[in-house]
Amino acid sequence: MKVSLFQFSFKSRKQAKKLIFKKARSLEVDLLVLPELTLLPYFCRKENMKNFKYSKYYDKDIKFFSKLSKKFNLVIVASLFEKQNEGIYYNTSIVFDKDGSIAGKYRKSHIPHDDNFYEKYYFTPSNDKIKPIKTSIGNLGVLICWDQWFPEMARIMALKGADILIYPTAIGSMKNDNKKETKSYIKAWKNIQKSHSIANQIPLISVNKVGIEGKKNKINFWGNSFVCNALGEITKIAKNKEEAISDVIDLSYSSKLKQIWPFFRDRRIDIYGDLLKRDI
Amino acid sequence: MKVSLFQFSFKSRKQAKKLIFKKARSLEVDLLVLPELTLLPYFCRKENMKNFKYSKYYDKDIKFFSKLSKKFNLVIVASLFEKQNEGIYYNTSIVFDKDGSIAGKYRKSHIPHDDNFYEKYYFTPSNDKIKPIKTSIGNLGVLICWDQWFPEMARIMALKGADILIYPTAIGSMKNDNKKETKSYIKAWKNIQKSHSIANQIPLISVNKVGIEGKKNKINFWGNSFVCNALGEITKIAKNKEEAISDVIDLSYSSKLKQIWPFFRDRRIDIYGDLLKRDI
Repeated sequence: MKVSLFQFSFKSRKQAKKLIFKKARSLEVDLLVLPELTLLPYFCRKENMKNFKYSKYYDKDIKFFSKLSKKFNLVIVASLFEKQNEGIYYNTSIVFDKDGSIAGKYRKSHIPHDDNFYEKYYFTPSNDKIKPIKTSIGNLGVLICWDQWFPEMARIMALKGADILIYPTAIGSMKNDNKKETKSYIKAWKNIQKSHSIANQIPLISVNKVGIEGKKNKINFWGNSFVCNALGEITKIAKNKEEAISDVIDLSYSSKLKQIWPFFRDRRIDIYGDLLKRDI
Repeated sequence: MKVSLFQFSFKSRKQAKKLIFKKARSLEVDLLVLPELTLLPYFCRKENMKNFKYSKYYDKDIKFFSKLSKKFNLVIVASLFEKQNEGIYYNTSIVFDKDGSIAGKYRKSHIPHDDNFYEKYYFTPSNDKIKPIKTSIGNLGVLICWDQWFPEMARIMALKGADILIYPTAIGSMKNDNKKETKSYIKAWKNIQKSHSIANQIPLISVNKVGIEGKKNKINFWGNSFVCNALGEITKIAKNKEEAISDVIDLSYSSKLKQIWPFFRDRRIDIYGDLLKRDI
Protein backbone atom coordinates (compact mmCIF):
# COMPACT_ATOMS: atom_id res chain seq x y z
CA MET A 1 0.00 0.00 0.00
CA LYS A 2 1.52 3.31 -1.10
CA VAL A 3 0.67 6.09 1.30
CA SER A 4 1.29 9.80 1.69
CA LEU A 5 0.72 12.14 4.59
CA PHE A 6 0.64 15.87 4.11
CA GLN A 7 1.24 18.25 7.02
CA PHE A 8 0.81 21.88 6.12
CA SER A 9 0.62 25.26 7.81
CA PHE A 10 -2.97 26.51 7.72
CA LYS A 11 -3.42 30.11 6.53
CA SER A 12 -6.89 30.13 4.98
CA ARG A 13 -9.42 27.67 3.57
CA LYS A 14 -8.56 28.80 0.05
CA GLN A 15 -4.82 28.33 0.58
CA ALA A 16 -5.35 24.93 2.21
CA LYS A 17 -7.54 23.65 -0.62
CA LYS A 18 -5.05 24.86 -3.22
CA LEU A 19 -2.13 23.21 -1.43
CA ILE A 20 -3.98 19.92 -1.02
CA PHE A 21 -5.14 19.90 -4.66
CA LYS A 22 -1.59 20.51 -5.87
CA LYS A 23 -0.22 17.83 -3.57
CA ALA A 24 -2.88 15.26 -4.53
CA ARG A 25 -2.09 15.84 -8.20
CA SER A 26 1.61 15.20 -7.69
CA LEU A 27 1.27 11.96 -5.75
CA GLU A 28 1.25 8.44 -7.08
CA VAL A 29 -0.13 6.66 -4.06
CA ASP A 30 -3.20 4.75 -2.87
CA LEU A 31 -3.89 6.73 0.26
CA LEU A 32 -3.52 10.37 1.30
CA VAL A 33 -3.99 11.26 4.96
CA LEU A 34 -4.52 14.86 6.08
CA PRO A 35 -4.43 16.49 9.55
CA GLU A 36 -7.32 16.97 11.98
CA LEU A 37 -9.81 19.76 11.11
CA THR A 38 -8.19 19.75 7.70
CA LEU A 39 -9.66 22.90 6.15
CA LEU A 40 -10.13 24.93 9.33
CA PRO A 41 -8.00 26.91 11.73
CA TYR A 42 -7.63 25.26 15.13
CA PHE A 43 -10.53 27.27 16.57
CA CYS A 44 -10.55 25.42 19.92
CA ARG A 45 -7.87 27.73 21.28
CA LYS A 46 -10.78 29.73 22.72
CA GLU A 47 -14.28 29.02 23.97
CA ASN A 48 -16.28 31.24 21.64
CA MET A 49 -19.84 30.59 20.53
CA LYS A 50 -19.15 32.21 17.17
CA ASN A 51 -16.82 29.38 16.23
CA PHE A 52 -19.71 26.97 15.72
CA LYS A 53 -20.04 28.73 12.36
CA TYR A 54 -17.16 26.64 11.06
CA SER A 55 -19.49 23.67 10.78
CA LYS A 56 -21.23 25.32 7.85
CA TYR A 57 -18.49 24.15 5.45
CA TYR A 58 -19.18 20.47 6.10
CA ASP A 59 -21.20 19.65 2.94
CA LYS A 60 -19.06 21.85 0.75
CA ASP A 61 -15.85 20.22 1.98
CA ILE A 62 -17.24 16.74 1.50
CA LYS A 63 -17.84 17.66 -2.15
CA PHE A 64 -14.30 19.02 -2.45
CA PHE A 65 -12.64 15.86 -1.12
CA SER A 66 -15.00 13.57 -2.99
CA LYS A 67 -14.07 15.21 -6.29
CA LEU A 68 -10.40 15.13 -5.39
CA SER A 69 -10.48 11.40 -4.58
CA LYS A 70 -12.17 10.58 -7.85
CA LYS A 71 -10.00 12.88 -9.96
CA PHE A 72 -6.73 11.49 -8.68
CA ASN A 73 -7.89 7.94 -7.95
CA LEU A 74 -6.92 8.24 -4.27
CA VAL A 75 -8.34 7.11 -0.96
CA ILE A 76 -8.39 10.29 1.16
CA VAL A 77 -8.78 10.68 4.93
CA ALA A 78 -9.87 14.22 5.78
CA SER A 79 -11.24 15.73 8.97
CA LEU A 80 -14.23 18.03 9.25
CA PHE A 81 -16.40 19.85 11.80
CA GLU A 82 -19.81 18.18 11.64
CA LYS A 83 -23.10 19.60 12.89
CA GLN A 84 -25.28 16.56 13.36
CA ASN A 85 -28.18 18.37 14.97
CA GLU A 86 -28.82 21.55 16.97
CA GLY A 87 -26.39 21.38 19.89
CA ILE A 88 -24.64 18.24 18.64
CA TYR A 89 -21.34 18.85 16.86
CA TYR A 90 -18.71 16.22 16.09
CA ASN A 91 -15.03 16.21 15.25
CA THR A 92 -15.28 13.84 12.32
CA SER A 93 -12.87 12.10 9.96
CA ILE A 94 -14.25 11.02 6.62
CA VAL A 95 -12.77 8.38 4.36
CA PHE A 96 -13.31 8.86 0.63
CA ASP A 97 -12.71 5.89 -1.64
CA LYS A 98 -11.00 6.12 -5.01
CA ASP A 99 -14.31 6.56 -6.82
CA GLY A 100 -15.19 9.60 -4.73
CA SER A 101 -17.75 7.78 -2.58
CA ILE A 102 -17.79 8.08 1.19
CA ALA A 103 -16.44 4.78 2.53
CA GLY A 104 -17.29 5.73 6.10
CA LYS A 105 -16.72 8.20 8.87
CA TYR A 106 -15.30 8.19 12.37
CA ARG A 107 -16.28 10.69 15.06
CA LYS A 108 -13.69 11.50 17.74
CA SER A 109 -14.46 9.51 20.90
CA HIS A 110 -12.05 11.03 23.43
CA ILE A 111 -12.30 14.80 23.70
CA PRO A 112 -9.42 16.71 25.34
CA HIS A 113 -9.87 19.89 27.32
CA ASP A 114 -6.85 21.60 28.74
CA ASP A 115 -5.24 25.04 28.51
CA ASN A 116 -5.63 26.31 24.92
CA PHE A 117 -7.24 23.08 23.70
CA TYR A 118 -10.86 23.66 24.81
CA GLU A 119 -12.44 20.89 22.78
CA LYS A 120 -15.12 19.74 25.23
CA TYR A 121 -16.81 23.11 24.61
CA TYR A 122 -17.29 22.25 20.94
CA PHE A 123 -17.32 18.51 20.36
CA THR A 124 -19.82 15.88 21.50
CA PRO A 125 -17.98 12.61 22.17
CA SER A 126 -18.92 9.94 19.64
CA ASN A 127 -21.21 7.11 20.66
CA ASP A 128 -20.82 5.27 17.37
CA LYS A 129 -19.65 1.68 17.37
CA ILE A 130 -15.85 1.63 17.02
CA LYS A 131 -14.93 -0.17 13.81
CA PRO A 132 -12.53 0.13 10.90
CA ILE A 133 -13.72 1.62 7.62
CA LYS A 134 -13.73 -0.75 4.64
CA THR A 135 -12.15 0.65 1.50
CA SER A 136 -10.86 -0.70 -1.81
CA ILE A 137 -7.33 -0.72 -0.33
CA GLY A 138 -8.08 -2.30 3.05
CA ASN A 139 -9.73 -1.77 6.43
CA LEU A 140 -8.69 1.61 7.80
CA GLY A 141 -8.71 1.99 11.59
CA VAL A 142 -9.29 5.74 11.70
CA LEU A 143 -9.12 7.42 15.12
CA ILE A 144 -8.46 11.09 15.97
CA CYS A 145 -5.76 12.85 18.01
CA TRP A 146 -6.56 12.52 21.77
CA ASP A 147 -7.78 8.95 21.05
CA GLN A 148 -4.11 8.12 20.46
CA TRP A 149 -3.36 8.18 24.20
CA PHE A 150 -5.86 5.38 24.85
CA PRO A 151 -4.61 1.86 24.03
CA GLU A 152 -8.22 0.69 24.33
CA MET A 153 -9.17 2.32 21.02
CA ALA A 154 -6.31 0.86 18.98
CA ARG A 155 -7.03 -2.56 20.47
CA ILE A 156 -10.71 -2.52 19.53
CA MET A 157 -9.91 -1.36 16.00
CA ALA A 158 -7.39 -4.20 15.66
CA LEU A 159 -9.76 -6.82 17.10
CA LYS A 160 -12.27 -5.71 14.47
CA GLY A 161 -9.83 -6.29 11.65
CA ALA A 162 -8.13 -2.96 11.00
CA ASP A 163 -5.20 -3.43 8.59
CA ILE A 164 -3.70 -0.12 9.67
CA LEU A 165 -4.28 2.61 12.27
CA ILE A 166 -4.65 6.22 11.12
CA TYR A 167 -4.57 9.27 13.43
CA PRO A 168 -5.36 12.73 12.00
CA THR A 169 -4.00 15.01 14.72
CA ALA A 170 -3.61 18.59 15.94
CA ILE A 171 -1.07 18.65 18.74
CA GLY A 172 1.48 21.26 19.66
CA SER A 173 2.94 23.35 22.40
CA MET A 174 2.56 26.99 23.39
CA LYS A 175 5.23 29.41 22.24
CA ASN A 176 6.48 29.92 25.78
CA ASP A 177 6.55 26.26 26.83
CA ASN A 178 9.80 24.85 28.12
CA LYS A 179 11.73 23.47 25.12
CA LYS A 180 13.10 20.44 26.94
CA GLU A 181 9.65 19.47 28.20
CA THR A 182 8.18 19.89 24.72
CA LYS A 183 10.85 17.54 23.35
CA SER A 184 9.87 14.96 25.96
CA TYR A 185 6.18 15.31 25.09
CA ILE A 186 6.88 14.83 21.38
CA LYS A 187 8.83 11.68 22.21
CA ALA A 188 6.00 10.36 24.38
CA TRP A 189 3.51 11.18 21.61
CA LYS A 190 5.53 9.09 19.16
CA ASN A 191 6.08 6.27 21.66
CA ILE A 192 2.45 5.81 22.62
CA GLN A 193 1.49 5.50 18.98
CA LYS A 194 4.35 3.13 18.14
CA SER A 195 3.12 0.98 21.00
CA HIS A 196 -0.30 0.60 19.37
CA SER A 197 1.47 -0.91 16.38
CA ILE A 198 3.51 -3.20 18.62
CA ALA A 199 0.59 -4.39 20.76
CA ASN A 200 -1.69 -4.94 17.78
CA GLN A 201 0.90 -5.84 15.16
CA ILE A 202 -0.38 -3.47 12.49
CA PRO A 203 1.22 -0.40 10.87
CA LEU A 204 0.20 3.15 11.73
CA ILE A 205 0.01 6.60 10.15
CA SER A 206 -0.13 9.76 12.24
CA VAL A 207 -0.59 13.16 10.59
CA ASN A 208 -0.22 16.31 12.65
CA LYS A 209 -0.75 19.96 11.87
CA VAL A 210 2.38 22.08 11.60
CA GLY A 211 3.14 25.76 12.10
CA ILE A 212 1.90 28.52 14.36
CA GLU A 213 -1.75 29.49 14.76
CA GLY A 214 -3.28 32.34 16.73
CA LYS A 215 -2.30 35.90 17.60
CA LYS A 216 -2.54 35.65 21.37
CA ASN A 217 -1.84 32.24 22.94
CA LYS A 218 -0.06 31.04 19.83
CA ILE A 219 0.02 27.27 19.39
CA ASN A 220 3.06 25.82 17.69
CA PHE A 221 1.82 22.60 16.06
CA TRP A 222 4.85 20.39 16.09
CA GLY A 223 4.51 18.37 12.87
CA ASN A 224 6.50 15.13 13.14
CA SER A 225 3.90 13.21 11.16
CA PHE A 226 5.09 9.65 10.69
CA VAL A 227 4.55 6.14 9.40
CA CYS A 228 5.56 3.11 11.45
CA ASN A 229 5.51 -0.59 10.66
CA ALA A 230 3.73 -3.40 12.54
CA LEU A 231 6.65 -3.61 15.01
CA GLY A 232 6.42 0.11 15.83
CA GLU A 233 9.51 1.07 13.84
CA ILE A 234 9.25 4.52 12.28
CA THR A 235 9.91 4.11 8.57
CA LYS A 236 9.25 7.73 7.51
CA ILE A 237 8.92 10.91 9.55
CA ALA A 238 8.37 14.59 8.74
CA LYS A 239 10.17 17.46 10.41
CA ASN A 240 8.58 20.50 12.02
CA LYS A 241 7.78 22.19 8.67
CA GLU A 242 5.32 21.95 5.79
CA GLU A 243 6.03 18.61 4.23
CA ALA A 244 4.51 15.59 2.50
CA ILE A 245 6.06 12.20 3.13
CA SER A 246 5.37 9.02 1.22
CA ASP A 247 6.02 5.41 2.08
CA VAL A 248 5.20 1.88 0.98
CA ILE A 249 3.56 -0.23 3.69
CA ASP A 250 3.98 -4.01 3.64
CA LEU A 251 0.76 -5.38 5.12
CA SER A 252 2.09 -8.96 5.12
CA TYR A 253 4.54 -8.11 7.92
CA SER A 254 1.55 -8.13 10.31
CA SER A 255 0.83 -11.80 9.56
CA LYS A 256 4.46 -12.75 10.12
CA LEU A 257 4.63 -10.97 13.49
CA LYS A 258 1.32 -12.45 14.60
CA GLN A 259 2.80 -15.92 14.09
CA ILE A 260 6.07 -15.15 15.88
CA TRP A 261 4.40 -13.51 18.89
CA PRO A 262 0.71 -14.52 18.94
CA PHE A 263 -0.56 -11.91 21.42
CA PHE A 264 -4.14 -12.17 20.26
CA ARG A 265 -4.23 -15.89 21.06
CA ASP A 266 -3.38 -15.13 24.67
CA ARG A 267 -5.61 -12.17 25.60
CA ARG A 268 -7.26 -12.90 28.98
CA ILE A 269 -10.75 -11.59 28.28
CA ASP A 270 -11.93 -13.40 31.43
CA ILE A 271 -9.91 -11.08 33.69
CA TYR A 272 -10.19 -7.75 31.83
CA GLY A 273 -13.58 -6.74 33.33
CA ASP A 274 -12.13 -3.86 35.35
CA LEU A 275 -11.24 -2.07 32.10
CA LEU A 276 -14.88 -1.04 31.95
CA LYS A 277 -14.68 0.77 35.28
CA ARG A 278 -13.77 4.41 35.89
CA ASP A 279 -11.87 3.87 39.11
CA ILE A 280 -11.61 0.87 41.34
CA MET B 1 12.01 5.78 46.06
CA LYS B 2 15.50 4.33 45.65
CA VAL B 3 15.44 1.20 43.51
CA SER B 4 17.87 -1.38 42.20
CA LEU B 5 17.47 -4.08 39.59
CA PHE B 6 19.90 -6.94 39.37
CA GLN B 7 20.26 -8.96 36.17
CA PHE B 8 22.63 -11.89 36.46
CA SER B 9 23.68 -14.94 34.51
CA PHE B 10 22.24 -18.06 36.16
CA LYS B 11 24.74 -20.91 36.74
CA SER B 12 23.34 -22.74 39.78
CA ARG B 13 20.98 -22.08 42.68
CA LYS B 14 23.93 -21.78 45.02
CA GLN B 15 25.74 -19.27 42.81
CA ALA B 16 22.55 -17.24 42.31
CA LYS B 17 21.82 -17.04 46.03
CA LYS B 18 25.40 -16.01 46.76
CA LEU B 19 25.32 -13.30 44.09
CA ILE B 20 22.00 -11.92 45.28
CA PHE B 21 23.08 -11.92 48.93
CA LYS B 22 26.26 -10.07 48.09
CA LYS B 23 24.37 -7.57 45.96
CA ALA B 24 21.64 -6.98 48.56
CA ARG B 25 24.32 -6.30 51.18
CA SER B 26 25.99 -3.65 49.02
CA LEU B 27 22.86 -1.69 48.13
CA GLU B 28 21.38 1.28 49.92
CA VAL B 29 17.95 1.28 48.36
CA ASP B 30 14.29 0.70 49.24
CA LEU B 31 13.50 -1.84 46.55
CA LEU B 32 15.39 -4.64 44.84
CA VAL B 33 13.81 -6.30 41.80
CA LEU B 34 15.08 -9.63 40.45
CA PRO B 35 14.40 -11.47 37.15
CA GLU B 36 11.67 -14.02 36.45
CA LEU B 37 12.22 -17.54 37.93
CA THR B 38 14.94 -15.92 40.00
CA LEU B 39 16.68 -18.97 41.48
CA LEU B 40 16.01 -21.42 38.65
CA PRO B 41 17.34 -22.14 35.20
CA TYR B 42 14.88 -21.25 32.44
CA PHE B 43 13.57 -24.83 32.29
CA CYS B 44 10.77 -24.01 29.81
CA ARG B 45 13.16 -24.45 26.89
CA LYS B 46 11.84 -28.02 26.76
CA GLU B 47 8.58 -29.81 27.57
CA ASN B 48 9.84 -32.28 30.13
CA MET B 49 7.78 -33.74 32.97
CA LYS B 50 10.86 -33.94 35.17
CA ASN B 51 11.07 -30.16 35.34
CA PHE B 52 8.07 -29.94 37.63
CA LYS B 53 10.60 -30.89 40.33
CA TYR B 54 11.80 -27.29 40.38
CA SER B 55 8.69 -26.31 42.32
CA LYS B 56 10.06 -28.12 45.38
CA TYR B 57 12.25 -25.13 46.26
CA TYR B 58 9.28 -22.79 46.73
CA ASP B 59 9.11 -22.78 50.56
CA LYS B 60 12.87 -22.80 50.94
CA ASP B 61 13.27 -19.83 48.59
CA ILE B 62 10.55 -17.86 50.34
CA LYS B 63 12.54 -18.26 53.55
CA PHE B 64 15.73 -17.16 51.79
CA PHE B 65 14.20 -13.94 50.42
CA SER B 66 12.27 -13.23 53.60
CA LYS B 67 15.48 -13.33 55.65
CA LEU B 68 17.29 -11.23 53.06
CA SER B 69 14.59 -8.54 53.10
CA LYS B 70 14.67 -8.31 56.86
CA LYS B 71 18.46 -8.42 57.15
CA PHE B 72 19.03 -5.59 54.70
CA ASN B 73 15.80 -3.67 55.29
CA LEU B 74 14.76 -3.99 51.63
CA VAL B 75 11.55 -4.59 49.75
CA ILE B 76 12.36 -7.47 47.38
CA VAL B 77 10.48 -8.70 44.31
CA ALA B 78 11.52 -12.27 43.50
CA SER B 79 9.96 -14.85 41.19
CA LEU B 80 9.34 -18.50 42.02
CA PHE B 81 7.80 -21.67 40.61
CA GLU B 82 4.76 -22.41 42.77
CA LYS B 83 2.94 -25.73 43.10
CA GLN B 84 -0.49 -24.73 44.33
CA ASN B 85 -2.02 -28.19 44.09
CA GLU B 86 -1.50 -31.41 42.11
CA GLY B 87 -1.52 -30.37 38.46
CA ILE B 88 -1.72 -26.64 39.23
CA TYR B 89 1.59 -24.80 38.97
CA TYR B 90 2.03 -21.05 38.81
CA ASN B 91 4.75 -18.67 37.66
CA THR B 92 4.64 -16.44 40.72
CA SER B 93 6.27 -13.20 41.83
CA ILE B 94 6.43 -12.57 45.55
CA VAL B 95 6.89 -9.21 47.21
CA PHE B 96 8.70 -9.23 50.55
CA ASP B 97 8.41 -6.13 52.71
CA LYS B 98 11.29 -4.65 54.67
CA ASP B 99 10.39 -6.65 57.78
CA GLY B 100 10.64 -9.94 55.89
CA SER B 101 6.87 -10.46 55.70
CA ILE B 102 5.14 -11.41 52.46
CA ALA B 103 3.34 -8.28 51.24
CA GLY B 104 1.61 -10.19 48.47
CA LYS B 105 2.07 -12.29 45.38
CA TYR B 106 1.20 -12.07 41.70
CA ARG B 107 0.76 -15.09 39.47
CA LYS B 108 1.52 -14.66 35.75
CA SER B 109 -1.73 -14.17 33.83
CA HIS B 110 -0.57 -14.35 30.20
CA ILE B 111 1.40 -17.49 29.41
CA PRO B 112 3.54 -17.55 26.25
CA HIS B 113 4.20 -20.66 24.21
CA ASP B 114 6.40 -20.45 21.18
CA ASP B 115 9.59 -22.11 19.95
CA ASN B 116 11.91 -22.65 22.95
CA PHE B 117 9.55 -20.89 25.37
CA TYR B 118 7.10 -23.72 26.13
CA GLU B 119 5.44 -22.14 29.15
CA LYS B 120 1.86 -23.32 28.61
CA TYR B 121 3.13 -26.83 29.36
CA TYR B 122 4.16 -25.77 32.88
CA PHE B 123 2.16 -22.77 34.06
CA THR B 124 -1.54 -22.46 34.84
CA PRO B 125 -2.70 -18.93 33.94
CA SER B 126 -3.64 -16.96 37.06
CA ASN B 127 -7.27 -16.30 37.84
CA ASP B 128 -6.50 -14.04 40.78
CA LYS B 129 -7.94 -10.54 40.83
CA ILE B 130 -5.41 -8.16 39.26
CA LYS B 131 -4.32 -5.62 41.86
CA PRO B 132 -1.18 -3.86 43.07
CA ILE B 133 0.60 -5.13 46.16
CA LYS B 134 0.66 -2.75 49.14
CA THR B 135 4.05 -2.32 50.77
CA SER B 136 5.69 0.13 53.15
CA ILE B 137 7.15 1.99 50.15
CA GLY B 138 4.04 2.15 47.94
CA ASN B 139 1.65 0.12 45.80
CA LEU B 140 3.66 -2.13 43.49
CA GLY B 141 1.97 -3.16 40.23
CA VAL B 142 3.83 -6.43 39.72
CA LEU B 143 3.23 -8.27 36.43
CA ILE B 144 5.42 -10.87 34.72
CA CYS B 145 7.16 -11.01 31.32
CA TRP B 146 4.59 -11.92 28.60
CA ASP B 147 2.03 -9.74 30.48
CA GLN B 148 4.10 -6.78 29.30
CA TRP B 149 2.77 -7.07 25.74
CA PHE B 150 -0.81 -6.51 26.95
CA PRO B 151 -1.75 -2.87 27.67
CA GLU B 152 -4.85 -4.19 29.42
CA MET B 153 -2.81 -5.42 32.41
CA ALA B 154 -0.89 -2.20 32.98
CA ARG B 155 -4.13 -0.24 32.71
CA ILE B 156 -5.94 -2.32 35.33
CA MET B 157 -2.97 -2.07 37.72
CA ALA B 158 -2.95 1.72 37.27
CA LEU B 159 -6.72 2.06 37.71
CA LYS B 160 -6.31 0.19 40.98
CA GLY B 161 -3.73 2.62 42.26
CA ALA B 162 -0.34 1.16 41.35
CA ASP B 163 2.40 3.73 42.02
CA ILE B 164 4.80 1.85 39.75
CA LEU B 165 4.78 -1.09 37.32
CA ILE B 166 7.29 -3.91 37.82
CA TYR B 167 8.04 -6.65 35.27
CA PRO B 168 10.32 -9.56 36.22
CA THR B 169 11.20 -11.01 32.83
CA ALA B 170 12.99 -13.80 30.96
CA ILE B 171 13.20 -12.83 27.29
CA GLY B 172 15.92 -13.53 24.78
CA SER B 173 16.74 -14.76 21.34
CA MET B 174 18.19 -18.00 20.02
CA LYS B 175 21.89 -18.10 19.21
CA ASN B 176 21.19 -18.38 15.50
CA ASP B 177 18.52 -15.69 15.25
CA ASN B 178 19.06 -12.89 12.79
CA LYS B 179 20.93 -10.09 14.63
CA LYS B 180 19.06 -7.24 12.96
CA GLU B 181 15.70 -8.79 13.79
CA THR B 182 16.76 -9.36 17.40
CA LYS B 183 17.70 -5.69 17.66
CA SER B 184 14.22 -4.74 16.40
CA TYR B 185 12.57 -7.06 18.91
CA ILE B 186 14.57 -5.57 21.80
CA LYS B 187 13.48 -2.11 20.70
CA ALA B 188 9.84 -3.19 20.51
CA TRP B 189 10.14 -4.81 23.95
CA LYS B 190 11.36 -1.51 25.41
CA ASN B 191 8.77 0.55 23.54
CA ILE B 192 5.75 -1.46 24.61
CA GLN B 193 6.78 -1.11 28.25
CA LYS B 194 7.57 2.59 27.96
CA SER B 195 4.07 3.01 26.54
CA HIS B 196 2.52 1.54 29.70
CA SER B 197 4.21 4.34 31.64
CA ILE B 198 2.99 6.94 29.14
CA ALA B 199 -0.61 5.71 29.00
CA ASN B 200 -0.87 5.32 32.76
CA GLN B 201 1.51 8.06 33.86
CA ILE B 202 3.46 5.95 36.33
CA PRO B 203 7.10 4.80 36.32
CA LEU B 204 8.19 1.28 35.44
CA ILE B 205 10.91 -1.22 36.25
CA SER B 206 11.69 -4.16 33.96
CA VAL B 207 14.27 -6.77 34.97
CA ASN B 208 15.36 -9.36 32.46
CA LYS B 209 17.62 -12.38 32.74
CA VAL B 210 20.98 -12.11 31.02
CA GLY B 211 23.43 -14.61 29.55
CA ILE B 212 23.20 -17.91 27.72
CA GLU B 213 21.30 -20.94 29.03
CA GLY B 214 21.09 -24.45 27.59
CA LYS B 215 23.39 -26.79 25.72
CA LYS B 216 21.21 -27.44 22.69
CA ASN B 217 18.81 -24.66 21.65
CA LYS B 218 20.73 -22.07 23.61
CA ILE B 219 18.77 -19.02 24.64
CA ASN B 220 20.63 -15.74 24.82
CA PHE B 221 18.73 -13.67 27.40
CA TRP B 222 19.27 -10.14 26.26
CA GLY B 223 19.45 -8.19 29.55
CA ASN B 224 18.63 -4.52 28.91
CA SER B 225 16.82 -4.22 32.25
CA PHE B 226 15.67 -0.64 32.69
CA VAL B 227 13.85 1.99 34.71
CA CYS B 228 11.64 4.57 33.02
CA ASN B 229 9.78 7.57 34.40
CA ALA B 230 6.04 8.33 34.22
CA LEU B 231 6.50 9.79 30.71
CA GLY B 232 8.18 6.62 29.44
CA GLU B 233 11.69 8.09 29.39
CA ILE B 234 14.38 5.55 30.23
CA THR B 235 16.41 6.94 33.12
CA LYS B 236 18.68 3.92 33.67
CA ILE B 237 19.37 0.87 31.51
CA ALA B 238 21.66 -2.17 31.82
CA LYS B 239 23.69 -3.63 28.98
CA ASN B 240 23.72 -7.24 27.85
CA LYS B 241 25.91 -8.42 30.77
CA GLU B 242 25.65 -9.18 34.49
CA GLU B 243 24.87 -5.86 36.06
CA ALA B 244 22.96 -4.10 38.85
CA ILE B 245 21.57 -0.66 38.17
CA SER B 246 20.18 1.77 40.72
CA ASP B 247 17.98 4.80 40.32
CA VAL B 248 15.90 7.25 42.32
CA ILE B 249 12.27 7.41 41.22
CA ASP B 250 10.28 10.61 41.75
CA LEU B 251 6.70 9.48 42.34
CA SER B 252 5.38 13.06 42.35
CA TYR B 253 6.02 13.34 38.59
CA SER B 254 2.94 11.13 38.08
CA SER B 255 0.65 13.68 39.75
CA LYS B 256 2.08 16.49 37.63
CA LEU B 257 1.58 14.59 34.36
CA LYS B 258 -1.94 13.56 35.34
CA GLN B 259 -2.85 17.24 35.68
CA ILE B 260 -1.23 18.26 32.39
CA TRP B 261 -2.78 15.44 30.37
CA PRO B 262 -5.72 14.00 32.35
CA PHE B 263 -6.18 10.76 30.40
CA PHE B 264 -8.00 9.01 33.23
CA ARG B 265 -10.69 11.71 33.29
CA ASP B 266 -11.51 10.96 29.66
CA ARG B 267 -11.59 7.15 29.43
CA ARG B 268 -14.75 6.10 27.53
CA ILE B 269 -15.78 3.11 29.62
CA ASP B 270 -19.17 3.22 27.87
CA ILE B 271 -17.65 2.23 24.52
CA TYR B 272 -14.90 -0.21 25.61
CA GLY B 273 -17.14 -3.27 25.85
CA ASP B 274 -15.51 -5.02 22.88
CA LEU B 275 -12.25 -5.29 24.86
CA LEU B 276 -13.84 -8.26 26.62
CA LYS B 277 -14.29 -10.16 23.36
CA ARG B 278 -11.85 -12.56 21.72
CA ASP B 279 -12.59 -11.58 18.14
CA ILE B 280 -15.35 -9.48 16.71
